[in-house]
Amino acid sequence: MLQSTPVPTTTSLLYPEGFLSPLEIDAAVERALAEDLGRAGDITSIATIPAGTQARAVVVAREAGTIAGLPLVAAMFRRLAPDIDIKASARDGDSVVTKTELMTIVGDARAVLSAERAALNMLGHLSGIATATAEFVRLIKSTKTRFCCTRKTTPGLRALEKYAVRCGGGFNHRIGLDDAMLIKDNHIAVAGGVRAVLERARANAGHLVKIEIEVDTLDQLRDVLDTGLADVVLLDNMSPADMRKAVAMSDRRVVLEASGGITIETIADVAASGVDYASSGWITHSAPALDVALDIEI
Amino acid sequence: MLQSTPVPTTTSLLYPEGFLSPLEIDAAVERALAEDLGRAGDITSIATIPAGTQARAVVVAREAGTIAGLPLVAAMFRRLAPDIDIKASARDGDSVVTKTELMTIVGDARAVLSAERAALNMLGHLSGIATATAEFVRLIKSTKTRFCCTRKTTPGLRALEKYAVRCGGGFNHRIGLDDAMLIKDNHIAVAGGVRAVLERARANAGHLVKIEIEVDTLDQLRDVLDTGLADVVLLDNMSPADMRKAVAMSDRRVVLEASGGITIETIADVAASGVDYASSGWITHSAPALDVALDIEI
Amino acid sequence: MLQSTPVPTTTSLLYPEGFLSPLEIDAAVERALAEDLGRAGDITSIATIPAGTQARAVVVAREAGTIAGLPLVAAMFRRLAPDIDIKASARDGDSVVTKTELMTIVGDARAVLSAERAALNMLGHLSGIATATAEFVRLIKSTKTRFCCTRKTTPGLRALEKYAVRCGGGFNHRIGLDDAMLIKDNHIAVAGGVRAVLERARANAGHLVKIEIEVDTLDQLRDVLDTGLADVVLLDNMSPADMRKAVAMSDRRVVLEASGGITIETIADVAASGVDYASSGWITHSAPALDVALDIEI
Amino acid sequence: MLQSTPVPTTTSLLYPEGFLSPLEIDAAVERALAEDLGRAGDITSIATIPAGTQARAVVVAREAGTIAGLPLVAAMFRRLAPDIDIKASARDGDSVVTKTELMTIVGDARAVLSAERAALNMLGHLSGIATATAEFVRLIKSTKTRFCCTRKTTPGLRALEKYAVRCGGGFNHRIGLDDAMLIKDNHIAVAGGVRAVLERARANAGHLVKIEIEVDTLDQLRDVLDTGLADVVLLDNMSPADMRKAVAMSDRRVVLEASGGITIETIADVAASGVDYASSGWITHSAPALDVALDIEI
Amino acid sequence: MLQSTPVPTTTSLLYPEGFLSPLEIDAAVERALAEDLGRAGDITSIATIPAGTQARAVVVAREAGTIAGLPLVAAMFRRLAPDIDIKASARDGDSVVTKTELMTIVGDARAVLSAERAALNMLGHLSGIATATAEFVRLIKSTKTRFCCTRKTTPGLRALEKYAVRCGGGFNHRIGLDDAMLIKDNHIAVAGGVRAVLERARANAGHLVKIEIEVDTLDQLRDVLDTGLADVVLLDNMSPADMRKAVAMSDRRVVLEASGGITIETIADVAASGVDYASSGWITHSAPALDVALDIEI
Amino acid sequence: MLQSTPVPTTTSLLYPEGFLSPLEIDAAVERALAEDLGRAGDITSIATIPAGTQARAVVVAREAGTIAGLPLVAAMFRRLAPDIDIKASARDGDSVVTKTELMTIVGDARAVLSAERAALNMLGHLSGIATATAEFVRLIKSTKTRFCCTRKTTPGLRALEKYAVRCGGGFNHRIGLDDAMLIKDNHIAVAGGVRAVLERARANAGHLVKIEIEVDTLDQLRDVLDTGLADVVLLDNMSPADMRKAVAMSDRRVVLEASGGITIETIADVAASGVDYASSGWITHSAPALDVALDIEI
Repeated sequence: MLQSTPVPTTTSLLYPEGFLSPLEIDAAVERALAEDLGRAGDITSIATIPAGTQARAVVVAREAGTIAGLPLVAAMFRRLAPDIDIKASARDGDSVVTKTELMTIVGDARAVLSAERAALNMLGHLSGIATATAEFVRLIKSTKTRFCCTRKTTPGLRALEKYAVRCGGGFNHRIGLDDAMLIKDNHIAVAGGVRAVLERARANAGHLVKIEIEVDTLDQLRDVLDTGLADVVLLDNMSPADMRKAVAMSDRRVVLEASGGITIETIADVAASGVDYASSGWITHSAPALDVALDIEI
Repeated sequence: MLQSTPVPTTTSLLYPEGFLSPLEIDAAVERALAEDLGRAGDITSIATIPAGTQARAVVVAREAGTIAGLPLVAAMFRRLAPDIDIKASARDGDSVVTKTELMTIVGDARAVLSAERAALNMLGHLSGIATATAEFVRLIKSTKTRFCCTRKTTPGLRALEKYAVRCGGGFNHRIGLDDAMLIKDNHIAVAGGVRAVLERARANAGHLVKIEIEVDTLDQLRDVLDTGLADVVLLDNMSPADMRKAVAMSDRRVVLEASGGITIETIADVAASGVDYASSGWITHSAPALDVALDIEI
Repeated sequence: MLQSTPVPTTTSLLYPEGFLSPLEIDAAVERALAEDLGRAGDITSIATIPAGTQARAVVVAREAGTIAGLPLVAAMFRRLAPDIDIKASARDGDSVVTKTELMTIVGDARAVLSAERAALNMLGHLSGIATATAEFVRLIKSTKTRFCCTRKTTPGLRALEKYAVRCGGGFNHRIGLDDAMLIKDNHIAVAGGVRAVLERARANAGHLVKIEIEVDTLDQLRDVLDTGLADVVLLDNMSPADMRKAVAMSDRRVVLEASGGITIETIADVAASGVDYASSGWITHSAPALDVALDIEI
Repeated sequence: MLQSTPVPTTTSLLYPEGFLSPLEIDAAVERALAEDLGRAGDITSIATIPAGTQARAVVVAREAGTIAGLPLVAAMFRRLAPDIDIKASARDGDSVVTKTELMTIVGDARAVLSAERAALNMLGHLSGIATATAEFVRLIKSTKTRFCCTRKTTPGLRALEKYAVRCGGGFNHRIGLDDAMLIKDNHIAVAGGVRAVLERARANAGHLVKIEIEVDTLDQLRDVLDTGLADVVLLDNMSPADMRKAVAMSDRRVVLEASGGITIETIADVAASGVDYASSGWITHSAPALDVALDIEI
Repeated sequence: MLQSTPVPTTTSLLYPEGFLSPLEIDAAVERALAEDLGRAGDITSIATIPAGTQARAVVVAREAGTIAGLPLVAAMFRRLAPDIDIKASARDGDSVVTKTELMTIVGDARAVLSAERAALNMLGHLSGIATATAEFVRLIKSTKTRFCCTRKTTPGLRALEKYAVRCGGGFNHRIGLDDAMLIKDNHIAVAGGVRAVLERARANAGHLVKIEIEVDTLDQLRDVLDTGLADVVLLDNMSPADMRKAVAMSDRRVVLEASGGITIETIADVAASGVDYASSGWITHSAPALDVALDIEI
Repeated sequence: MLQSTPVPTTTSLLYPEGFLSPLEIDAAVERALAEDLGRAGDITSIATIPAGTQARAVVVAREAGTIAGLPLVAAMFRRLAPDIDIKASARDGDSVVTKTELMTIVGDARAVLSAERAALNMLGHLSGIATATAEFVRLIKSTKTRFCCTRKTTPGLRALEKYAVRCGGGFNHRIGLDDAMLIKDNHIAVAGGVRAVLERARANAGHLVKIEIEVDTLDQLRDVLDTGLADVVLLDNMSPADMRKAVAMSDRRVVLEASGGITIETIADVAASGVDYASSGWITHSAPALDVALDIEI
């Protein structure tokens, strides 16, 4: 094995186990800058800051939380000033206290000011998700239940938000419609029942596609278990009491995911039921942004 | 003048006074569907729903709120099934009660199921912003103060979120860095003071560019007023008491915008001070999604 | 359930159980036409065929095979002439004899001639893959072994070729690097052995990600089985005799995929061993195109 | 042969023999609208024209000239309002007098006003090129000399401007660097002379690539003719007298193109020399726009 | 404040106060090179210049003028040869005499020749606009009138041409339809008069949007002034005598822009009237290119 | 002339005389990586290989053949790890024996593993075409006949496959529909015969467009020769005996291309007939991939 030294590229800032294509970073950076710079760019800074002026900027967490998005922040400043000097003092996945300095950027002042808002919007958004996730995870860390996300994400930010969930210690549900099967009530109805739909799914799914099926009742769960055809069962809006029965009934023959109404208030009870996974859409569609800022010295 | 009959296109669902390029709708729809469908599409529905099956789906608001995003919802379903039949029973900007049916979609079941989550994510996100905005607006509707957004938006969704703010009855701050000047502390410091920076800005700004400058204190406001060079002054994190003094001091020579710490709790006091605009980043970066659903009958 | 009538759109030409995002079709059509039309278009036809001339064209299979790609053919002609009239007399997945007419196109002659080569190249390429797949599938249809593809696809055509494999009756291995885990020798070596690598994988994989691991020897297979942590085991370049032992050894605790050296000559023996899946890269990287043509009457 | 009736699509508005890929039209339309509509669209019309208002607009030539660009005009309005009603009363390539009505558009008023400037900019620009071309062509129509363009085009508009030249009655030089060889002084110098460079070119060029070589003097022309390896010779900045000698010297063994200093004043003399082609960069990089307008009745 | 030293990136070549997003540069460079290189690239140079050959090239102004576009020229060569050595001896906004050397490029000969035409087309086009602008500006520099552009730009080049106008010393009108309101005759007619339309505009425009209204007569101007609702009034095709009256009538309550028929011949008279701005579409849609060349030594 | 030293960029790995735009390389690399990395990237390597781990990888030809695609391989690894160290020990166009090491890559292990399959798929595909081409070329190298490709290429890979043909020693037919005219039976029929169609083509084609016409019989060839209007004649599916007569009949007045049924078995006879070019679609649509691999040491 060759020597393992950190490579000083953007990717080295990534959360070690975060699943994210590097190409997604570049695309998101380009979109975010394009929508803010428009056609004429940062006309205020161009008009008032002399060309060539240098700035030193520090990215700061204004409140405690879990960080996600630093590689995107770095990429945004580099996109506008390739020679800019960036030093990270935190990594995605870190939990930090108020006023923690996360990254220092030294370079062209116009570039720094031009990328400031886009960079902070990205960091605040993803760190908000990571922070919310980490709070759920903290509440169940003494259990074997894992916390995971859903596909209820902000439009256009799926891959990044799934990555932020990982930074917060959560797990990822399927990324999109194409990487696993999740059979819902309508699929069951059209196919004519649980066994019929699972047989159709199995008949088409290859060996690398997991099959999950949603059930509302314990009776439905029993039907599913009887088929032996599901990998995962989603318990939709069940009470913790029913979840406990489901755990007993399934006896580890399938993975159980609890979903619907999972909140900071309920998560501990849900986990206590023994389900394998608890999922929440709230962390990606409604978690508030983390307050982050850029302290600039020009 | 020719006869004014409604045109049954996507744009006819738009909030009448909402500022949004139609091209932004198509781009957002493409991105949202692409990230959910991935490369293989909705493999669950393809495997379990026979080709050619028809569905009837109703978009429903599961909680009361103000709607934004229906044209995008329609465009998503049409993108996957051009011949799909769509009937809207609400328009963007409408305030609705719980369980209001917003739109009915009849067509290919696989297409309906494939677009469902992307469409709901978009509608829930934008309606969440519109709903939050409407709440602020309601609290100050007896005043002359207008409520507006900032550039603290979700990355990649700037244009859509600004539109959602309009749907909620709010006004738009600048869209990006290039359509107006907003002079902040760093610009002032580099230029060497309020007068110097405003002169530089005026020297470069054409006649269709507004110039706003941020002040922290009433002394700074006086300096700005003395120059006669600013169109708008942003009062940053001032108390309502100081805002009132600022209103008196400026005597309508400039437009005054209060920003920083504007919340549901404080907005009434802020408006009572007589400022022209009160702005909030929270409505675009942290407003929770509105709960919307798709009731499907196949 | 609503009435199930076929919808006359492009998507209705898709192989009923083929996994493919409709957005992939449009992107592939645009690229294929763009590279052939270049900047100036079909200068021969523009120069020699009067504007407005109509043509009738029939897509024909010049040799027997299994068809894949008709929706893309239709989309190409429609891209250049939205009003063109297209009637399909075959569907993707059909096995046809020599000289079978697959589709009839009536419309603007310049458009027909401009799209001809791009359309035939696509149909010939995908049908070549479907035909090769169908031949493998035919040879093992009396067994329970399923035939599947790999990621050894033609650059830029991954999604389409995976779809073509389905049209030929094969199954899909993972689409890309992100929808399942396939642990290979290097991963094992870095992690320090089979148990260590599988534990790392399990620690990071959510409940909708399958984990496959590649083994070269029966000893390695035993190590994997002992962990109980793998969903699928890839038997790399094993002899049918060893495959048989692997089947016995694993006793249905994991799914077994045979890979490496799977050819038309060996597939029957491989399947006879009782493995669950046999995979071949050849069908996507080296299968010859099916001979298809466009008979045009102007 | 089938009946030849005009197809009522955008392409039917194209100049019958104009070489242009339809895909170029869509791309140009998208870019032109995007840069004008920006993120928020036509905020003036949205604010002041009620949604659903209808307009009738007539595209008018405000000065005499040759028209190019009507399919792009139609495509722009359709891009914003797919159902808009468009009737053309002229075709690209037509020479029209002042105040000629070219096209009538009836539909959504906001869409008409939103696309107005982008459409007129395109039509004025391309018609300016067509008009300038037509003037050159008129001056030499009694000769056998053909008039053609160069690669000195406006950035991003190569394909459209080449098409406009055709609308004006001119011919196209190569579209880009890749569809023919044009050997210039630097190529000759590096290769070590006229024969060496032509041999290298011939050794690499397939049978569908023409080879042109630029010469400054009659001596160089003789050297080229001696090789028998060039298809076309470009006479760079020669006097009409020398052109005449070149015509005699070459005796139809090569095609001769005169280039450099070809103006409205000199073109007749150039053509009188008997050269086969005369080319001008001015028509594409500096021809003034034709004055076109949109008369709108709402 | 940190030390202010020039950063050696592409942006440092930009005109100090030119408003242009850096992302626009990259997009324009990509499009311009793509349309010239096509699919096969510079086949002449590939066939005749040995790989690895080095060249030294000097960008020269062949006629006097004002320069705009050097950062794009640099970016084009760097796009094809990232390691190329570029030294600028002029900056955008410089007015230069004939034969001024603007930039020296040393690197791979094939890359230099491949980018030559695209780079010169861009530089010639933008410098033509800057030069025309500078000529207008020169004629009115003793007055307080500012010279500005319109939206009558070349399709696809809006942002770059607006930047070139700044390089020539002019000011920018709005960039597109979305960054300011310009109320024209049709808007007035639909709304039912000047006051009604301005009230609608004010009711929708936020505090960072300027409102301009077009008037044909002094009576209309008076109506506008009476409302007190416009920021800017465009005097459409008025005589200098009427402009003078308009200046007196408005008494600095609004900014006045003269438009229509502004030429090199009339600009001095227009400025003498005391209007604040004079605008011309000619400089962007019809200004001839500046003659620039690349002297190459291989 | 400046000193000619190799430039160490991606382009320096290109086959010296291969015609390919560098922009095509970047686009192909982006597409190939994007389809494999998906949204979440190489989740196996992220989960099992620690961040910062280094790898050394060697690209090896597992069978003898002619290489094409090394610059794309290099660009893929660089796209994921800009600082990666790459050393090529072969160049495109080289014919290599089994087990030849082609390129060594040292850098981030995750990046190496993430790009591995996409890079090998590209290299194997293009080298397969180059190898097949080289085999045809070898069989006719004692003749004057040149071997060339057609437009029967894999969708989306036209430019790259044409380049691979050059690497194998073949020549390129036209790149697309727009860089030369190829008149086929339908064009002839619509125009009303060989002379009519050639006159129309000549009337529209500029001096840099070659005109080829397809004939089935010697009689048709005679008709074509009589017109004196064709540059190239394609002999469609003629026997070698008829080809020989065609060569005699045309007496070098046109270039002759034999097409249809050209295989490894027939190519020698075809060349012996004296035709100038022999073309094959098989080499681009059906040549099997060359077996290439990446030996990785982490």
